[in-house]
Order: sequence, then C-alpha cells, then structure tokens
Amino acid sequence: MTEQRIITLTTDFGIKDPFAGIMKGVILKINPNAKIIDISHNITPQNIFEASQVISMSYKYFPPNTIHVVIVDPGVGSPRRPLLVITDNYYFIGPDNGVFTPFLEEPHTEIFKVMHLSASHYYLPLRGPTFHGRDIFAPVAAWLSRAMDSAKLGEPIKDYVTTPAPKPRTIDKTSIEGEVIYIDSFGNAITNITKDTLDKLSPETSKEKFKITYKDRQLNLSNYYEEAGDSDISAVINSFSSLELFVFKGTAFEKFGIKTGDKIRVTLI
Amino acid sequence: MTEQRIITLTTDFGIKDPFAGIMKGVILKINPNAKIIDISHNITPQNIFEASQVISMSYKYFPPNTIHVVIVDPGVGSPRRPLLVITDNYYFIGPDNGVFTPFLEEPHTEIFKVMHLSASHYYLPLRGPTFHGRDIFAPVAAWLSRAMDSAKLGEPIKDYVTTPAPKPRTIDKTSIEGEVIYIDSFGNAITNITKDTLDKLSPETSKEKFKITYKDRQLNLSNYYEEAGDSDISAVINSFSSLELFVFKGTAFEKFGIKTGDKIRVTLI
Amino acid sequence: MTEQRIITLTTDFGIKDPFAGIMKGVILKINPNAKIIDISHNITPQNIFEASQVISMSYKYFPPNTIHVVIVDPGVGSPRRPLLVITDNYYFIGPDNGVFTPFLEEPHTEIFKVMHLSASHYYLPLRGPTFHGRDIFAPVAAWLSRAMDSAKLGEPIKDYVTTPAPKPRTIDKTSIEGEVIYIDSFGNAITNITKDTLDKLSPETSKEKFKITYKDRQLNLSNYYEEAGDSDISAVINSFSSLELFVFKGTAFEKFGIKTGDKIRVTLI
Repeated sequence: MTEQRIITLTTDFGIKDPFAGIMKGVILKINPNAKIIDISHNITPQNIFEASQVISMSYKYFPPNTIHVVIVDPGVGSPRRPLLVITDNYYFIGPDNGVFTPFLEEPHTEIFKVMHLSASHYYLPLRGPTFHGRDIFAPVAAWLSRAMDSAKLGEPIKDYVTTPAPKPRTIDKTSIEGEVIYIDSFGNAITNITKDTLDKLSPETSKEKFKITYKDRQLNLSNYYEEAGDSDISAVINSFSSLELFVFKGTAFEKFGIKTGDKIRVTLI
Repeated sequence: MTEQRIITLTTDFGIKDPFAGIMKGVILKINPNAKIIDISHNITPQNIFEASQVISMSYKYFPPNTIHVVIVDPGVGSPRRPLLVITDNYYFIGPDNGVFTPFLEEPHTEIFKVMHLSASHYYLPLRGPTFHGRDIFAPVAAWLSRAMDSAKLGEPIKDYVTTPAPKPRTIDKTSIEGEVIYIDSFGNAITNITKDTLDKLSPETSKEKFKITYKDRQLNLSNYYEEAGDSDISAVINSFSSLELFVFKGTAFEKFGIKTGDKIRVTLI
Repeated sequence: MTEQRIITLTTDFGIKDPFAGIMKGVILKINPNAKIIDISHNITPQNIFEASQVISMSYKYFPPNTIHVVIVDPGVGSPRRPLLVITDNYYFIGPDNGVFTPFLEEPHTEIFKVMHLSASHYYLPLRGPTFHGRDIFAPVAAWLSRAMDSAKLGEPIKDYVTTPAPKPRTIDKTSIEGEVIYIDSFGNAITNITKDTLDKLSPETSKEKFKITYKDRQLNLSNYYEEAGDSDISAVINSFSSLELFVFKGTAFEKFGIKTGDKIRVTLI
C-alpha cells in the first residue's frame, strides 16, 4: 500500500451545497487511501486574492508532498487552463488565474515546475462546463496522490498568470504604509506589514520604537491580545509574523468598520 | 481488515452544534475503519425536498457500496420508521419521510430493496426522542459498514413514503414550463428542466433554438459562466445537466430575488 | 502500526479562516495515523461556557482514549497555562480557563489527573502569541495520540481554573427554577433542568405531574417534537436528558426571542 497522501481543499463552494463532498467522493473512487483535509470552503465567492492568502498561510503546516487543491474559479468552463505547480515540498492544483501567485513568485529551485494539466484522460469522462472541481481538479489530484509521475499529467508552461499582491509602500526613511489584506472571522484585520518589513525599518523590533496609525488613531503594539485589555483597537505581531489590528474580546471589523484596503502607517520614533 | 467503507452524512444539523460530530463518534466506536465524509450539514431545517436534491446530485460520485445517511427528520421520535434503501450500487439510510424519493422512483432492479430498520439491538442501548441520528441511524450505518448482512437489520417493506418532485409541464408542442428547485450558495438557481427535457423538445440542443423566459426577461443560454460577461441574468446547462440561471460574478438570488418555485419557460423557436 | 487514535476539535475559529485546517496539518505531520474529527469550529467567539457545554454533550460518544482538544482561548499568549485533563476514558487538551469545568468537577478517580503541559520541546519550534492551537495544542495532542507517556508532557497541578455553571434553584418543596443554557441551530432552547432534577421533584416523571412555566406561558411536556403539533412553544426531555423548549417545525429562538439565561420554572402539581 502506498503512503497515505494528503489532499487539502480550499474553495469558495460554501458548505451548504454538496460540491465539496462530491469532490471527496471523486477522489476516494480513484484513491481510497487519500486523506482529504478541508482548509476552507468559505472563501468569499470569486475572491481569488483571498484564496491565495488562505493557502499561503496554510500550506507549509502540512507534511511534505501534500497536494493543495485551490478552486476559486470564476472562469470555469472558459479556455483558462488547469494548473499544477510543483515546489520543493508541495503540489498545488487549481485554475490558472493567479491564485498561486505567492508560490510562483518565490525564488525558483530546480524542482520548481508549472504544468498545464492537459492530459484529459485523467479527467472524469463526462464533463460539464460549471464544475471543474469535480471533473478535472479532484480526479487529477487523486491520480497524483497515487504517487504517479506528474510528467504524465500535462506539459510544462512558462506563461502562467500571476496577480501581484499589494506591497507596503515606503513613505520616507522612517515610515511605511501598508494595508489590510484579510479580515478573519474574529474580526481581526491582518495587514501586509510583516515582521520583516518592521525589521528593515529598525533592526530591533520593540513596541516603544514604532508609532502605528490607522485613520488618525494611534495604536498600541501589544505582545498578545489580552495585554491590550479594554482599550479600543490595538496592534499585535500575529502568529503569521504579520501586523494585525484587533479589539480584545471584540471585533475590529464590527467596531471600527475596518476592511481590506484600509491603510496602516508605521513610523519609527 | 475489511475494506474501508465510506459513510456520507447529509443533515440539517448545522455546524455549530456538536450533533454531526457526535454521530461520527458513534460510528467510529462501532467501526474504527469507517471513512466518514460530510456532504452537507446545512440543509435548510426540516426541508426534506432540499435534502433529497442534495443527495441526488451527490450519491453516484462516491465509490460503490458507499452508505449515504440522510437525516432531515421533523418526525423524529414519532412512529415514522427508520429506513434502509438498497440500490444496485449504494445504500441509503434515513427516516421514512420521502427524503429518498429519487431512489424509490427509479426503475427497480433485482437488487433493489427497502427495509424497515427494526432490529433495535443494533441501535444505541439508551435512546432519546429527539436525536435518532445518534441513537439509530449512525449505529446502524456503522454496523452495515462492517459489511454485515443487511437482512439482519430489519424486514423488507413496500409501503414506504414517496413525495414526488415537481416536474416540468408541457405548455404546447414547442414550449415547456419548469421551475427553480434549488438555489446554491453562489446564488445560482437550478431548475427542474434538464438536458433531457430540452432534447425532447428538439433533438439537437443549440442555444439558437430556444427562447428562455423568466419573469418577462428573455435569457441567453451561455456555454459557461464567463461567456455571459456583464449581461444580467443568463442561463447555462450546468454540470448536473440541469438548466441553471446565474449572474456572472454575481448572485441571481440577490440581484433578482429568484427563489425556489419561480417559473421558467423554454420555447422552441 | 499503532492504533488509529482519534483527536476531536472544538474551537471558535470559524470555518472561513484556515486555522482549523492548519491544526490538522500540524497533527498529521506528527502522527499521520491520527483520525481527526471536528466537533465544532463555530463556538461563539470567546464563549468558554458554550464550548464547555458542547464538549460535555459530546465526549462520551467517542471511543475510549479519544483526545478532545477544545480551544476557546481569549487569553492566548498570556501566562495562562495549557492543560491536559486525564479522566478514566478520555483526554482533554486546552487552555486553563475553565473550559473543562464539567470534567474537573466530576468525582475524581485514581486515574484522574490534571497536568500543566509545560514540556515545550513538544510544541512547534517557532511560536507566535496568537495561535496556540497551532503551536502548542495541536502538536501536543498529536504526540499524545502516538500513545506516548503523558507524564513526559508536563507536571501535575491542582490549582486549575474552574467556572461553575448555573445550577437549578429550589424555590420550595414542589418547584424549581432553572435557566436556558444553550440555543441550538434549530432554535431549540436547552435548559439546565435535567431528568435527574425532575426525578428528585417526583420519582415518576409523567407529563401530567408537572407545570412548566416560561414568561407567564404554561408549556406542555411532549414526548417528541411532532407530538406538539401546531401549538406554540412546548417542552420535551431531549436526548441529552435535559428539559428543552422548542417550536415544532419552527424556532423558539426566533419566535419567542428565547435566549440563554431565561428562567424556566417547573412545579409539581
């Protein structure tokens, strides 16, 4: 028996409809030993950027050789291509619409390869125009999880789609401006300002050294949520090394209407 | 070790309460090798028809011998019977309230059998009146997944409940009227007009040949979602071979208030 | 190969964000044979009491030796301790914030032990201040699921936190007052009045014997939901042996605004 390979699913299919369950049936018909793990089926419909952030946060916590299937696919049925991205430790399967940008921009190693999954004999025989998750992505992921040679699944391409994410902007020598790129279900606002960005401003990150500004408010940088106590909106370097705005035991999203795209400024004092 | 048999779950239990998780515990206590797959726990509460559509869309994508457990059961605790439906390739377990109508109406083969799950020694020993998912359906599904003889679980019956679904209505030689039977979480409206229905109107389905009308609007039939572009509501033959109304990158449900029961007319030009 | 040990997850992480999925990745990296079952990820954010009720309802339906991980953890990153509670048949892992009160109050056997999970070499090597589910609880649960000696994970403590739940109050010899402690997703209101409480009022529970009052309404005690028919709000002894208020095919929560903390009185006639 081959190793139990893991296939993760990240989609905007929601959890009421049977679409995610159907994909699992298709996978298990092809590889009864596949271990299928849901990352999320509640990506905002058609929000490719959100899906790319969710998979970026998650992929490396899975065992090597995990196959990450990501399907946010407004172009389903159109000529856009189904893709396999092979990195040093992981496989990514999904549509060629920029959802894998974070992995396509990484420094490329010898193992790195992007393939157009053109070998349609690995798809389901009967295909419809609206559900490639079932007809293309699930079966191909299942075949790959049987440790078959990925070269059989299609041919390498170079002209894949990338959609660069917004990057923090240098204002002057002592200050940068970033933005909120994700609101989690606690109402916390994750920004694109990382610990690395702050380290570049100042080699020793210390909360006394920074002034953090959001819409004319100056925020404290807490070490953990509870430390902020009953104060209103605060900031923390979260467990993904990103600057995050939060309200302790509350939701920054509801209390301050904070949303993706909102600007955050950090200034070295 | 016996084959890892799959048990799927389709319920209206929601995902906040522990009810689905408890069923999984009960199953794994009886068969540690059962592979449990969620199809949906978000069927609209008490909506038997919706559950029957969700399982109809899903069942055949699972490996043969999969046991599909479907629990939308407003009559829980009443004398309504627990049922096992055996078809050529699948098992269905749930209450005798019409939820399995799509499988009970199919042409019956020699294998086809409907059983009253009356062998209460396969239930949990302590039973309550409000959660047969835990006390009856989960344990019986688990025993069946151990490949035991289904004849031990009860006795065959013929007087099971069926609740026929609305069928498209012939208006005249060139036109039919169907209706919306399901709204998915993208806000797409799935109708009871299938490719087969259209083929009967005209042997060659071609979008030039049909006029599709919804509330005085005439809809285009697209080959896939993106093809509709920025136009408003459009139609597509979806991946379940049903006529579906949608708004590209939007939701027909929110934009047009489309809902189950709404009429759609198709006329041969 | 060791026995497939079960790890259950109960959190307030929601299902949009990848947090629960990430925990599963971390677990499977350490123990590829762990069987992970979701109980709920939709505990109301920061509602420790709700989480303790959900796990109380669920734990015993799982096979012996199941590891129940419960994370509702507003104090994440603060000095509050990570805990392991060992009972006769189960393990519980989560923060020391009272979430395990139901198990800490039970009569203690020789096996009973509470441990501070201080052995940080079983945590993930890189840790952040906001996601101990990933960095501490998941890896420790995974190591424990490999049947390792729990003594290696930390040291026994006695000064753990408990947060007693509201108990029914005796009004006089013939009547008690309890309260709603949980609203399920059907809108049913589960109270802290159990069959045991009623048995103490009267050794033979019979619906003729009790008068049940909620906000000046007198409720019937039904044997099962459907029996209540079209009447408005009714009561039932549910499958967890608790007095529950419901509206047949409706929701008591929406129709009567019933909420946790609402008082219910039961009087022996």
